[in-house]
Amino acid sequence: MSEKLEQLKERLAEVADISNATSVLDWDQQVNMPPAGNEARGQQLATLSKIAQEKFISDEVGRLIDDLQQEYDGADTDEAALVHVAARNYDKAKRVPPSFIAEQAIVTSRAFEAWMEARGKSDFSIFQPHLEKVLELVHKYISFFPPADHPYDTLLDDYERGMKTADVKAIFDGLRPKQVQLIKAINSAKQVKADFLYKKYNEKKLMDFGVEVITKFGYDWQRGRQDKAPHPFETSFSINDVRITTRYEADNPLATLFSTMHEAGHAMYEQGIHPAYERTPLSGGASLAVHESQSRMWENLVGRSLPFWEHFYPRIKKAFASQLDGVSLKSFYKAINKVEPSLIRVNADEATYNMHIMLRLELEIGMVEGKIAIKDLPEVWNAKMEEYLGVTPPNDAKGVLQDIHWSGGAIGYFSTYALGNLISVQLWEKITGDIRNLDDQIRMGDFSELLAWLRRNIHQHGQKYEPQQLVEKVTGSKITPEPYVRYLKKKYSEIYGL
Amino acid sequence: MSEKLEQLKERLAEVADISNATSVLDWDQQVNMPPAGNEARGQQLATLSKIAQEKFISDEVGRLIDDLQQEYDGADTDEAALVHVAARNYDKAKRVPPSFIAEQAIVTSRAFEAWMEARGKSDFSIFQPHLEKVLELVHKYISFFPPADHPYDTLLDDYERGMKTADVKAIFDGLRPKQVQLIKAINSAKQVKADFLYKKYNEKKLMDFGVEVITKFGYDWQRGRQDKAPHPFETSFSINDVRITTRYEADNPLATLFSTMHEAGHAMYEQGIHPAYERTPLSGGASLAVHESQSRMWENLVGRSLPFWEHFYPRIKKAFASQLDGVSLKSFYKAINKVEPSLIRVNADEATYNMHIMLRLELEIGMVEGKIAIKDLPEVWNAKMEEYLGVTPPNDAKGVLQDIHWSGGAIGYFSTYALGNLISVQLWEKITGDIRNLDDQIRMGDFSELLAWLRRNIHQHGQKYEPQQLVEKVTGSKITPEPYVRYLKKKYSEIYGL
Repeated sequence: MSEKLEQLKERLAEVADISNATSVLDWDQQVNMPPAGNEARGQQLATLSKIAQEKFISDEVGRLIDDLQQEYDGADTDEAALVHVAARNYDKAKRVPPSFIAEQAIVTSRAFEAWMEARGKSDFSIFQPHLEKVLELVHKYISFFPPADHPYDTLLDDYERGMKTADVKAIFDGLRPKQVQLIKAINSAKQVKADFLYKKYNEKKLMDFGVEVITKFGYDWQRGRQDKAPHPFETSFSINDVRITTRYEADNPLATLFSTMHEAGHAMYEQGIHPAYERTPLSGGASLAVHESQSRMWENLVGRSLPFWEHFYPRIKKAFASQLDGVSLKSFYKAINKVEPSLIRVNADEATYNMHIMLRLELEIGMVEGKIAIKDLPEVWNAKMEEYLGVTPPNDAKGVLQDIHWSGGAIGYFSTYALGNLISVQLWEKITGDIRNLDDQIRMGDFSELLAWLRRNIHQHGQKYEPQQLVEKVTGSKITPEPYVRYLKKKYSEIYGL
Repeated sequence: MSEKLEQLKERLAEVADISNATSVLDWDQQVNMPPAGNEARGQQLATLSKIAQEKFISDEVGRLIDDLQQEYDGADTDEAALVHVAARNYDKAKRVPPSFIAEQAIVTSRAFEAWMEARGKSDFSIFQPHLEKVLELVHKYISFFPPADHPYDTLLDDYERGMKTADVKAIFDGLRPKQVQLIKAINSAKQVKADFLYKKYNEKKLMDFGVEVITKFGYDWQRGRQDKAPHPFETSFSINDVRITTRYEADNPLATLFSTMHEAGHAMYEQGIHPAYERTPLSGGASLAVHESQSRMWENLVGRSLPFWEHFYPRIKKAFASQLDGVSLKSFYKAINKVEPSLIRVNADEATYNMHIMLRLELEIGMVEGKIAIKDLPEVWNAKMEEYLGVTPPNDAKGVLQDIHWSGGAIGYFSTYALGNLISVQLWEKITGDIRNLDDQIRMGDFSELLAWLRRNIHQHGQKYEPQQLVEKVTGSKITPEPYVRYLKKKYSEIYGL
């Protein structure tokens, strides 16, 4: 390895250490921190972020990257990928002045508070002026970058590198009519019974069951832990310290279980990244969408499948004998896959989830293009909900105010959720081709070959490949909606007898 | 405030943020971290420490301190104290080259592993060569500083600023004969019964009882939390986030309770520091000894007192009815104050504890002076144990290898434990003069006036005053052994009918 690469890696390792330390502080804030610790923690996080940024965009790092880019140009090695990703991140970081970051921190911190209040009072007008400021900043942010095909491209690229607005639109255009059609067909079919899912389920037993499941999946407890937190999330400070959180929702107890599988999916991805990428820009997942493909795969393609429950149903039935008394495996399976157009994205089922995302993408593009005024968002939101899902939010809290993302300036993020769903099935078609008896293995509670496949084809590569490149390398095609449509049709035709 | 002071405070706040972040990572490592996370955490901690050090000893900070020292010279204000403490810390940090710190990290990391192994096998010879290297480094460290009255002064000053070896020796010389005499008298007296303390006590109930006690003390849970950890400790990341840990020891269950009070004593000190000192060098306790005076006061002067148990005994008896069946308040009080010369410092009672410290101080001074060879330590240790306490360790694990301190290079630390005991009683004499009915208040479970006194006289000042200066300001005298001797004599004469 060249001496310059060694030097660059050393500097980037330092930046990675600071950024991982920041993640520890953030995890602690969400999991442990006593209430009064908030202000000091904010200062600590701000200081660490500032130092990481300064260290990263130093002239020395810039010079090293410049020199190394020439040296490694075009090579298909880890080293070349490292230099390439570092160069890309450096260019992005360098374009955004520290004064903008400071301004953004203030604006989004106030916008977050306003959003909390607005949601609590279900009054969009409280949030509106703050979202307008956020949008101004978004435009300012876009202005730091060279003009793209579409201004939204610049935003999207931060969450899904290499992805274009036109690509996402084309994918969603292929998906939307088919998914709307399917939802209508399901709505007209005989509905499935799911009331037994909403009885009282003992929290500890549910948590224990979740732990049993993800242990079988292959989540490595020597390199992770699970805690309770207000929101389920996954975070990592190293490939050897990848943590997840969970929560108990009294009005939807089984959600605990599926969100545990979801977060474990994210976590197993992080645990599977090549050890050589530790403390380099190649650590972490390829993109938010690829990350989401992993969480969704374990949550839905595995965790909401019939073979999975053929293995686990006797166990959950033993743990919750009275709640599931008289409920057959088939009825349980149907219940956990019940389709019901609903108001809240995070609670949406597989058949309707993407519609929530498409709605948000259209609104975001409309905002960025200036074609939708912030003040009109609630109205547009409600109209689209009616159009796509046949439901209208009774108030803004259950409509336009439900998500945290915009308050933090995260415009461009949402579509990665839907893309993750699509990728998960696109990969699944390949996997079930490669592992012909996967269903049988799952029926036996054996997930080792599946995890090994994911490790080999996805996890180990970290950020080496761009998301579209990775998906194409593994499945032979870029992200495409057809596998997902096929999957939904097959699954729900069986469940609803379409 | 001068512009330069503003600038200095800004830079020091940044250093404080990094150092507080380091403490979060350290707490997490001891409380939560999965086993495999060790290596990455070590790198993160090393990186943060290095950055904090670099930021602190920058030329700019040096220039600001120089200029400000002239401006604030001799003033008795918070600002002057801040500049003074910053200057002192800066001078110390600047004298020690980064290469030494790196070398020390490697040597002590190996020494720690060797100590673990040596203690496990009870074989000092495994640790000996490492301790020799540690001692070499200690001499090297001393060489960075101007010659002091005694080379050990340089070490002591890092833990107890302003304190001289001769001062500590004089204090201990005044204490030793009286304490030895008392121990002998107790040994000859009728022994107290304490077997009921070593029955099986339910862990959860004990923990709950501990929480009840420290809540009454005034430990603020809005600004803190308690977790289980292999070792009890207190740590703080802000005056608004001060945490403690506890553990359950099956063979000494009540230890949980007293160590909870002990750590809460440390924690209430940190919670009581003036909010204006947050993120400045004036935050934190005045010294290790003053810190220990607070933990020992709550653990011993309050927690092992008769008035305290007059309040709490009915409660603990209710929680542990079978264990304490037929045990009177008086018998319980005597049992928790039972004196028994023993081998292990951390388990020692109030009457014998300081003897363990004096032994260590003599050995450390002997090592630094070159009068005691490392290889002879076990022998010298055992001889002194016999001389001071009348017991001889059966092996090195229960003798010279019992403490972690030397493996980490912490030579000069131990005497602060004994000084803390002395200060606690010296303060207590003043407190009971100021609050005449304190015993009655404690008997009612009311600790508010006591805590308010400590806040006013000790806690709020943080590091503004040097320890000897603070003790003198509050009690009218520097640290002196007489109050402690009076206290021991009175307490144990009553218990043992001397």
